[in-house]
Formats: sequence, C-alpha cells, structure tokens
Amino acid sequence: MEYKFSDRVSTLKPSAIREIFKYAADPSYISLSAGNPAPEAFPAKEIAEISAKLLAENPILALQYSVTEGYPLLREELTKYLKENHNIGRDFDNIIITSGAQQIADLLTKAVVNEGDVVITEAPSFIGCLNTFRAYNAKLVGVPMESDGMNIEKLEEALKNNPNAKFIYTIPNFQNPSGITMSLEKRHAVYDLAKKYGVLILEDNPYGDLRYIGEALPSIKSFDEDGIVMYAGSFSKVISPGMRVAYVMGPQPVIQKMVVCKQGADVHTNIWSQVVCYEFMKNYDFNAHLENLRQIYTKKRQVLLDAMEKNLAPYITWDDFNGGLFAWCHLPEGVDMLDFVQKAVERKVCVVPGTAFLTDENDPCDAFRINFSTPTDEQLVKGIEILGQLIRDILGK
Amino acid sequence: MEYKFSDRVSTLKPSAIREIFKYAADPSYISLSAGNPAPEAFPAKEIAEISAKLLAENPILALQYSVTEGYPLLREELTKYLKENHNIGRDFDNIIITSGAQQIADLLTKAVVNEGDVVITEAPSFIGCLNTFRAYNAKLVGVPMESDGMNIEKLEEALKNNPNAKFIYTIPNFQNPSGITMSLEKRHAVYDLAKKYGVLILEDNPYGDLRYIGEALPSIKSFDEDGIVMYAGSFSKVISPGMRVAYVMGPQPVIQKMVVCKQGADVHTNIWSQVVCYEFMKNYDFNAHLENLRQIYTKKRQVLLDAMEKNLAPYITWDDFNGGLFAWCHLPEGVDMLDFVQKAVERKVCVVPGTAFLTDENDPCDAFRINFSTPTDEQLVKGIEILGQLIRDILGK
Repeated sequence: MEYKFSDRVSTLKPSAIREIFKYAADPSYISLSAGNPAPEAFPAKEIAEISAKLLAENPILALQYSVTEGYPLLREELTKYLKENHNIGRDFDNIIITSGAQQIADLLTKAVVNEGDVVITEAPSFIGCLNTFRAYNAKLVGVPMESDGMNIEKLEEALKNNPNAKFIYTIPNFQNPSGITMSLEKRHAVYDLAKKYGVLILEDNPYGDLRYIGEALPSIKSFDEDGIVMYAGSFSKVISPGMRVAYVMGPQPVIQKMVVCKQGADVHTNIWSQVVCYEFMKNYDFNAHLENLRQIYTKKRQVLLDAMEKNLAPYITWDDFNGGLFAWCHLPEGVDMLDFVQKAVERKVCVVPGTAFLTDENDPCDAFRINFSTPTDEQLVKGIEILGQLIRDILGK
Repeated sequence: MEYKFSDRVSTLKPSAIREIFKYAADPSYISLSAGNPAPEAFPAKEIAEISAKLLAENPILALQYSVTEGYPLLREELTKYLKENHNIGRDFDNIIITSGAQQIADLLTKAVVNEGDVVITEAPSFIGCLNTFRAYNAKLVGVPMESDGMNIEKLEEALKNNPNAKFIYTIPNFQNPSGITMSLEKRHAVYDLAKKYGVLILEDNPYGDLRYIGEALPSIKSFDEDGIVMYAGSFSKVISPGMRVAYVMGPQPVIQKMVVCKQGADVHTNIWSQVVCYEFMKNYDFNAHLENLRQIYTKKRQVLLDAMEKNLAPYITWDDFNGGLFAWCHLPEGVDMLDFVQKAVERKVCVVPGTAFLTDENDPCDAFRINFSTPTDEQLVKGIEILGQLIRDILGK
C-alpha cells in the first residue's frame, strides 16, 4: 500500500517540543523544556472530593453523552466569572467548552480559514497553535514582538498586504514563549486595526491568572463592542491540563459554526471533568486557589532569576517576565543557538530552541525557552549551572 | 462585523439528530431518537472505586499533561485484547487513543483527504461521521445498503468512477442507523476492492460487543495483511460515552500522521479517563461486564420487538437487527416519512428521520430510526403504541 496524505499534512512535522520531550522523559536529564504545571499546584484533594461525591450522587451526569456546547452550569458560571472579574462578555457573545484551548485554535481555523488564507501571529508564538493553523494549510504571517507586544506598524503592514487574513492570534499576557506582556496602548491598537481591516482576533489567555508582579491589564476582549474578539481561557494551568477543559467566548455567529465543527470533531468535551471544574469554581474558593498558585510560582521564578543572575549573566540575557511559566533567553552574538541547545542536551539539560516558535523555522533566532514551573528547585539550580558552564566553555571564559 | 466563514463550513448545518434532541430533552416527550447507553449499563461503582484509588495514590498521573498517542498502558492492554480476542493487529500496525471515535473520523479525514476528494460511505450511514467528512469539504459517495451490507457492484462502480476516493467508511456490525450486519463474504469483497483500488478502509465498530443473537463475524481488520484498514473501537457504548475515550489501530505511517493532527487538535485525550478505562479492563472482569450489557439490551430489544409486532405490523416493517442499539423502520408506500416524523413529534414521540443519514438528504427515504437502549421499557411500549396509532390514523385503518 502506498499511502497518500493530504496536502495540508504532508509537510507537517511532529512538534519540536514533543520531540525534545523524548529526552525530557528520561529522568537522567534535567528538563527545562516542558510547560507543565508544578505537581504541587494541582488541587488533587479537592478534585478527589468533588469526583467521589459526583459519582456517588449523580453518576449518569458524569458518564452519559452530553451536549456539544458544554455543561450548561459551567458555561453559566464562567459567563458570570468573566463578566464580574474581567468585564468580558456582551449580549452578542456566547461561550462554549472545548477539549483544551488547543481545540479553540483548531475549531476557529476550521470555521473561518480557507486553505491558503492567512493567519497573523506574533513572532515568536506558541508552536502548538502554529501547527494547528498549518494543519489547515493556512499561511502564517509573523509580526515581530517588541518588549511591549507586537510591532504595530508591522501588524498594519501585514493586514494591508494580506486581504485574505482571517484572524490575528495573540497571547497578550506572559506570552509563550517570550514571556512578554502586551501594553494597554498596544491592546487598543491591535483591536482598532482588527476592526479597521475586518479580521477577528483570537486572544489566548492561558496564563492571565499567573501574574507575580504588577497589576493586571484589561483583556482585548474587554474592549469588544463590535464582536471581533474570540477570548480563549483554560483550566489547564489553573486546575489540571490532564482533564483538557477550556472555554471560548465570542460573537454568537462564530461560536455557532465552531459548535458545528466540534460536533464533527469530538461530539463534546469529557463531561465528568467539566462537572468537576464547575464544582471547583462554584463550591471552593477559586480566587484563594489562584493566589496559592501565584505563591508557588513566584517562589520558583525567584529561584530561576537568582540562578540566572549567578550563572548566565552577563553572557546570556533574558526578557522581563512578570507572570506565566517561561523565560526567554538570548545568546550572545556569534553563538549558534541550535548548536548551544544540542550541546545542552549532551550535558543532559533540555531547553527548547527558539526557532520552534517561528512562523518560518529557518529564520535566524538567538533565543531559547526555559520553563520554571515543572522542574524542582534543585533541578532548576543545577540545570542553570550547567547552562552557565556551557556558555562559558563556548566563549572560552 | 461581517463574518466570513470557510467554504468547508459555510453550508454545514447542525446535526439533525442534535436538533431533535432539543425536543427529546423535554421530559414530556418520549425520545426514541438518542443513541445513549442505558443508564443501568454504566459500571458506575467500579469507576468510582478506580478513580478514588487513582486520585489518592497517583493524582499527578491523572491530572498532568500526557502524551498525544495516549496512555501507554492502555495502548498495550488494547493491543493485547484486540490480538487475543479478535485477531486484530500485525507488526505494521500501531494504536492510539482518541477523544471518542468521532475524532478518529476527523483525524483520518484531515490526514488523507484533500478538499474535493471522495469518501465512500454506506447509504444510509452515521450522520456524525458524514458531517465530519463534510467539514473537510470531502465529496460523499453513498453505496446503497442491502440486507447483508453494501451492494458490492455499486461499491466497485463508485471506486472506478472516483479515482480521488481516499477511503471507504463502514460500520460492519449492527450499522447505525440500519442495524444491518455485513456478511463475511462481503467483508472479504470490500477488503479486496479497497486493495485493488488502493484506498483505505475505516472500519468503525462501536457496537461489535453488543451482539444479542448469533455468532460474531471476523472484522475486516482481521484480514488485513496489506496495511489498508483503520480499525476504530470505542469505550462509549461499553463503559461510558461521557469520558470520550476511543482507539484506532492501523498501519504506522497513517497513525503517525493522525498523531501529528491530534497534537494540533486537542494535544491528548483526557488522561484521567484513559487511566480509568485501563484499570477497568485490567483489574475487573471486562468480559463479564460485556455479558451483563448484552443481557440488559437483549431484554430491551425484546420489549421493542414485542411492541412493534403488536402495534406497527403489518403497516410499518423493520430490518433484522441482531445487535446494536437501533431499529430501522420502513413506512408503507404513499406515506411521507418527514410528515410522519413531524406528526410523531406533535404526539410527543421523537424518532430520527432517515434522510438525516443519507449522503444527500434530498434523496427519497421511507425509513426512520428507533433507539431502544435509552428509553425505559415503559417509554418504549408507550412510544411504539403512539406510533402505531399514528400510522393507523394516517392510513385510515
């Protein structure tokens, strides 16, 4: 049998991060390459309580088929939560539950992007979603990141040059991989440009609740009076990624098409886990839980910063990151990034090469990504020491 | 904002079944339209036990990110189970876990079907998968069903006339909606034709374990020496559909592309539920559980048959169904099927119009589908009585 694959996937490769995971899964390696929550961040006891009660009192709810849109009580609770806490949601909006936030990118692309159409993304951006867009033969146009978010002139240029652009994909808070947070001014500018050029915005906010320094900025969706922003939230970083429960709020006509696409994709999201997320939000102190997560990660971030100051400075620099799970590190001029990452693997430390996050991975890139949520403090310190020794060896310092 | 949707979804409509569910959810209606397992068929106690132990002893396994291919122990257990029980699986095959069997149709279509390519299906066939194929702009070519499966001459004609056909979609056991089981001879014929014309087969087998009469026939996959059959199995009908856990076994090159597509679709399937399915298969008597399900449904099937004999015969006839969850009922000549279904809804009984299952729903159809797994015995009897009265009223008998 000679297998013929569709044009859209024939050039698609497994995610570079997932390939690195093969080493990272080996316990003799120190992995700074994942994006997993810290093991101590899971509300495992509360989940066990909720689940035991649910299966004892209402097993059919948890185990039977459910509706594609998602568990109605969870949708209501999230609608209230987003309105009260983030001023998100207008009369024209609706919310559905998805199987992780990755599925939001998948369903939106399926619903609005024809093959060859353009998706505008930050450059660098989250590799998982870039691959989702590629899997529909979308053309990716990257807009360079600055310390306060996308370069707005380049964004307008991209919109002007690509009348078949369908949406702008952005992670405004503690972006993956760069850790950058978009300024309020740029949030307004992105919104205004999307409106002017008639494209949607996919605002992906998995890390918004994980701010360790400073005050939260309003989401782009909170400005949305025109029905152009799809807001993606997720329980993956704040309750559990293994459950694959996320949500998207956006204008009803787009949500409706995404529901039809979801019927054909997986019928509905695991309802047992949806009910668990609902009960956790409703009957436990969700804000206290988030505060606890912030404390865990504030401490881990400091461990990383101290280790980087001691071992990587001044040769390797990093961008400011006030939240999220990642640090984005730049190598000094003349040091080949892919060679550095390869040598780090040889010394049993895994980081992710920055090229993985580019719309064209052959573009030059001086950066690599470090995750600080998953490793233990000891692994963090040891891993950064090894990277520090490596850069000094390469530079002959 | 003027929303522009992709060509692939702009003509896509919500599933007719899901629309009927809106009435069916109203408890004043008798719904014979779902395809849900009977509430008493869930191993709720065992699931609660397994889950409590898992969350107490290994919560991180259940709650953390996992690998796209699926929980390794479940993949191993299923590989062994399929080999030992069904002679399925060769060296060239691999198995992955998916978020329900619907996702198998989605990932395979994404991986091998270009827009405009053909998928050959039984006619009628499962509306969920037909809509999945449509959502990739696949062209559907239906092959008429006979009492022993697809018309083989028409199948060869379809393959000959459509060199861009990529796969044949079939449900060989107790097909949805027709209840028909493909004969052994036709299973070989379908395999041989797929091989001759170089197309894949998607063998969807959600109901195979739910045979109430007669002996099981070998699956098409059990003949597969050439790597042309993708075998889809599911826990939805035998453990719980709410968990959305299914599996597909097929030749490694195709599975590998499906894994890449799944990375972009939902990263991985809910790992908590995957572990629960594994532990249930491994540590409980899975075959005894299946035997119990067969007893439950054998009884319900008999309730339906008795009620149909008493109320529908001789005006409404039905095809033999030796397993599964559905009866496929034919109206007498001259009775308009859509009108009948509409009038049944007015009398508060919901069945699914047969046109929903056609590749072209404007084709003529004299049939509707009855589900007997979800309603109580009392609802079944009462619902069939109402349908019997309706047909006599229409015919003036």
